[in-house]
Amino acid sequence: VPDPRFYRRAGPHQLAYVAKIAGAEFGPGINPSNLIEDVAPLARAGKSAVSFATADFADDFARAACGACLVTVALAPRAPSSCVPLICPDPRYAFAAVARAFYPPRTQSVLISGARAADAVVAPDAVIEHGAIIASGASIGPGCRIGANAVVGPGVEIGRDCSIGANVVLGYCIIGDNVVIHPGTVIGQAGFGFAAGPRGATRIPQLGRVLIRDHVELGANCTVDRGAFDDTIIGVGTKTDNMVHIGHSVVLGANCIVVAQSGIAGSTTIGDGVIIGGQVAISDHLTIGAGARIASKSGVMRDVGPGETVMGYPAKPVKKFWREVATLARLTRKSAP
Amino acid sequence: VPDPRFYRRAGPHQLAYVAKIAGAEFGPGINPSNLIEDVAPLARAGKSAVSFATADFADDFARAACGACLVTVALAPRAPSSCVPLICPDPRYAFAAVARAFYPPRTQSVLISGARAADAVVAPDAVIEHGAIIASGASIGPGCRIGANAVVGPGVEIGRDCSIGANVVLGYCIIGDNVVIHPGTVIGQAGFGFAAGPRGATRIPQLGRVLIRDHVELGANCTVDRGAFDDTIIGVGTKTDNMVHIGHSVVLGANCIVVAQSGIAGSTTIGDGVIIGGQVAISDHLTIGAGARIASKSGVMRDVGPGETVMGYPAKPVKKFWREVATLARLTRKSAP
Amino acid sequence: VPDPRFYRRAGPHQLAYVAKIAGAEFGPGINPSNLIEDVAPLARAGKSAVSFATADFADDFARAACGACLVTVALAPRAPSSCVPLICPDPRYAFAAVARAFYPPRTQSVLISGARAADAVVAPDAVIEHGAIIASGASIGPGCRIGANAVVGPGVEIGRDCSIGANVVLGYCIIGDNVVIHPGTVIGQAGFGFAAGPRGATRIPQLGRVLIRDHVELGANCTVDRGAFDDTIIGVGTKTDNMVHIGHSVVLGANCIVVAQSGIAGSTTIGDGVIIGGQVAISDHLTIGAGARIASKSGVMRDVGPGETVMGYPAKPVKKFWREVATLARLTRKSAP
Repeated sequence: VPDPRFYRRAGPHQLAYVAKIAGAEFGPGINPSNLIEDVAPLARAGKSAVSFATADFADDFARAACGACLVTVALAPRAPSSCVPLICPDPRYAFAAVARAFYPPRTQSVLISGARAADAVVAPDAVIEHGAIIASGASIGPGCRIGANAVVGPGVEIGRDCSIGANVVLGYCIIGDNVVIHPGTVIGQAGFGFAAGPRGATRIPQLGRVLIRDHVELGANCTVDRGAFDDTIIGVGTKTDNMVHIGHSVVLGANCIVVAQSGIAGSTTIGDGVIIGGQVAISDHLTIGAGARIASKSGVMRDVGPGETVMGYPAKPVKKFWREVATLARLTRKSAP
Repeated sequence: VPDPRFYRRAGPHQLAYVAKIAGAEFGPGINPSNLIEDVAPLARAGKSAVSFATADFADDFARAACGACLVTVALAPRAPSSCVPLICPDPRYAFAAVARAFYPPRTQSVLISGARAADAVVAPDAVIEHGAIIASGASIGPGCRIGANAVVGPGVEIGRDCSIGANVVLGYCIIGDNVVIHPGTVIGQAGFGFAAGPRGATRIPQLGRVLIRDHVELGANCTVDRGAFDDTIIGVGTKTDNMVHIGHSVVLGANCIVVAQSGIAGSTTIGDGVIIGGQVAISDHLTIGAGARIASKSGVMRDVGPGETVMGYPAKPVKKFWREVATLARLTRKSAP
Repeated sequence: VPDPRFYRRAGPHQLAYVAKIAGAEFGPGINPSNLIEDVAPLARAGKSAVSFATADFADDFARAACGACLVTVALAPRAPSSCVPLICPDPRYAFAAVARAFYPPRTQSVLISGARAADAVVAPDAVIEHGAIIASGASIGPGCRIGANAVVGPGVEIGRDCSIGANVVLGYCIIGDNVVIHPGTVIGQAGFGFAAGPRGATRIPQLGRVLIRDHVELGANCTVDRGAFDDTIIGVGTKTDNMVHIGHSVVLGANCIVVAQSGIAGSTTIGDGVIIGGQVAISDHLTIGAGARIASKSGVMRDVGPGETVMGYPAKPVKKFWREVATLARLTRKSAP
C-alpha cells in the first residue's frame, strides 16, 4: 500500500467509475456500485483493490486475490471467481489512468510559503543552512546538516548525523543514520515508467518510496528514482561515486561500491558487497549475486552469479573478455596485408 | 534572427569596425561606413548581415546573399558581387569575435533583486514554491507548478499545466503545455561550440533557443543546450529518463523515448517514435530515421534508417552485432590451448 | 599541508593518542607523549607528521622522513631510524581514522544565517543574483556574476570576470580569471576515497583543493572532486561539455577539450591540448600525453603517448581499432551459413 506520508488516496471509487476511467467493460450480474478502495500490483492486490494482468502473467492472474482486474478479452475467462474482470484492449495503459484516479498528482502547496513548514520536525541541534527548504511533515534527526539551498520534500524522514549537501533535492524517501549525500543529487523523483497508448506514452503513477539505509554515501549529481509500487532500496554502508543513476525499484545490497557515471535500470536486484566500476550499465530486472565485480564500462544484460567477475559489452566472465580481445588482435594481425 | 526575448543586438556596426574586430581586410572602393546590422549563418544571411565561409562551403558562398563575409584569401575571388569579402586567416575564429560584438554577453541583472521580476507574467493559479526565482520577461501559464529553488531565466515562456521540478534551471527556452521537468535539470545553457584560435579555444556565441513541445517529460539532472543559430527542439510527447544530454541544435522528434545517461551530440536530427536505450552516444550531424531503435550502450557514428534497429560500438544492425559476438566467442574457443 | 582556508587542524596529538585511534602499537623505549602535528602522504610527511605505508611502497617507507608511520608488522623492521613504526593490521584503514582525528569534518555553520557572510569579500561591481549564497571567507573578484541560487562555499576564491551559473555549488576551490561554469555543476566535494574495513568501507578524509585556472569553461551538471592530499587541477583554457566527471587529484592540462558525459578517474594526469570525445572513461593513475586524442566512448585502461589517437574498449591505436572492426565483420560474413 502506498505510504500515506507521501501519497493521499482519493478513493474509494465505484466499480462503474473505475471501468469508465479505464475504458473497460464488465459482465452482467455485477453490482456497478461495488466499492474499489485502492490499486495494487497483481501479487499484492487484495479483494478491495483493482489490479491489471497481461498475457505474461496469465497464471498469476488465475490465482489472484484482487477484487477487480483490468484484462484483455482473451484473458478474462481465466479470472478467479472472486475477481471481476474489467475487459479493455490495453490493461497496462488502462491501469495507468486508474492509478491516477486513486492517486491524483499532489500539489506540494506545503512548499509555497516560507523556508520551513510549521509541521516539520527538526532536531534542535540540526544545522539548516541558509536557503534550505524543509517541507510539511518532514523530519530531520539530531546532528544532521542540511546544505544551502537543499530541498527536503513533504514527509521525508532523515535519521541522525546525516550530511545532506547543497542543492540536493529529496522527495518520497526515508533516510537512515550517518548518511552522506553530496551536492546536486536528486532522490525520489518518479521512475521512468510509461505505458504506450494511442496518443503516445502515458505516465504510470509511481507510488513507491526510496529507502536509504545507514552509513550510505551518495556522490554528487546522482539520481535515485522511486518505483511504481516496490521501494527503491540502497543497503547499509553502500557508497556511490558521482553521477550514478539508480532506477526505480532497484534493490542495491549492503556495502556495495558503485563508481562514477554507472547506471542500474529498473527492478534490478544487486547483492551485498558488489563492486561496480565506472560507466557500467546494468539492464532492468536482473539479479547480480553477492560479491560480484563488474569491470568499468561493462554493459550487463544477463544475471551475474555470486562472486563472479564480468567485463565487456555484452558483459562476460573477465577471462573470456580478455581472451576475446587477444583473439581479435591476433586474427587482425594475421589478415594484415 | 536571434529571438529578441533572449538576445539584445548591439549593432548596427560600420563595416570598418567589423573588419577591425575580425582582424580582416577588405578591398579598395568599398565604403568603410557601410552599416552591418546582424550576424547570421551563410544560408540565412541577408544583405545587411555579415557571415563567414570556409572551404567546405565554397559553393554555398558563391551563391550567398550576405552583405559581407569573412573568408580566406583563397576563397575571396568566389564572392558574389553583392558581398564584400572580409579577408582573414581563420574565418570561423573571426566570426566568433564579430558575433560577440553584435551580441555582447548580457548581464542578467534582472535576477538581482527579489525572487520575482516586476514584469514577469505568472498565471494567478500557478504555484510558485518557496525559493523559486522568476526573472524579467518570463511568463508562466495557468496550472503550472514551479518547484522550490528553481530558476526561470529572463524571457522564458512556460505554457499551461507544466510541472517544473525543484532546482531546475531554465534559460533561453519556450516550453509548451503539460510538460514535466524533473529536479536538477538544466535547459538552455550555451552549447559546446568553440573555434580554435591562436590562444586556445574561443567561444562561438550561441544565439539560438530551446523549444520544448507539449507533453514532453524530461528526467532529473538532464542537460539540454541551446544552439548557435538553429533551435534545439524536443518534439511532442517525447520522454527522457535521468541524466540525458541533448546537444545544441539537436532536433528530437515526437514520441521518442530516451533512457538514462544517453547523449545526443550537436545538430543531429532524430525522427518521430525513436527509442534510444541507456548510455547510448549518438555523434553530431547525423540523421536517425523515424521508428528506429538503438540498443543500450551503442555508439552511433552513422545515419540510421527509419525503422532500423542498431546495436554496438560502432553501432550496426542488431542481428549483425549478435552474429559478430557469436563469431568472436567461437573463434576464441577454437584458439584456446 | 592542507590549505588552512579550507581545513582546520585539530592537533597536535600525542603519539599514544594517535596509536589508540589507529588501533596500533609501538615498541618500547618510545616516549608516548611525543607530539604529532599533522598527517601527510609518505612522500611529503616530515618528522612531526604521521603517515602510512603498504607493501607496495616498502622502498619509499625505508627512505621516509615521517616521524611516525602506520605499517604492518611485516614492514615495521624496514622503518628508518627517525620513524616510529605504529603497527596495525590495516595501515590504510587506520590512517583514515587518524586523518579524521587531525581534520574533523567541519560544520559549515557560516552558511546558517543570511545569504552573505559578513567576512566574505565581494568586488563592488560583481553581480550576485537573487538566492545566491556567499559563505564565510569567500572572495569574489571584479566583474564576476554569481548565478541565482548558486552556493559559494567557505574560503572559496574566485578571480576576475568569472560567470558562475545558477545552482552551481563551489567548495574547497580556487578559481582564476575569466572562468565560466554552467548551471548545476558541483565542484570540490570529497573524492571517492574509501578504505575497506571490518565494518564496510570507511571514508578517507579528502584534504586537497580544486584549482581552476584562467579561461576554463565547464559545462552544466559536471562534477569535479577534490583529492585526499594532491589538488585536482584544470589547466588554462580547458573546456568541458556537460556532465563531465573529473575525479580526485586529476591534473588536466591546458587547452584540453572534454566532450559530454566523459569521466576521468582519480589521480590521472592529462597533458596539454588533449581532446577527449563524449562518454569516454579514463581509468585512474594513468598518464595521457600532450596532444593525444581519445575517440568518443573509448575506455582507456593504459597510458596514452603524446600525440597518439586511440579508440575502443579497451582503447587502442585508432587504426588498429578500425582494422579489428573490419576483421570481425569479415570473419562473421565468412562463417555465415
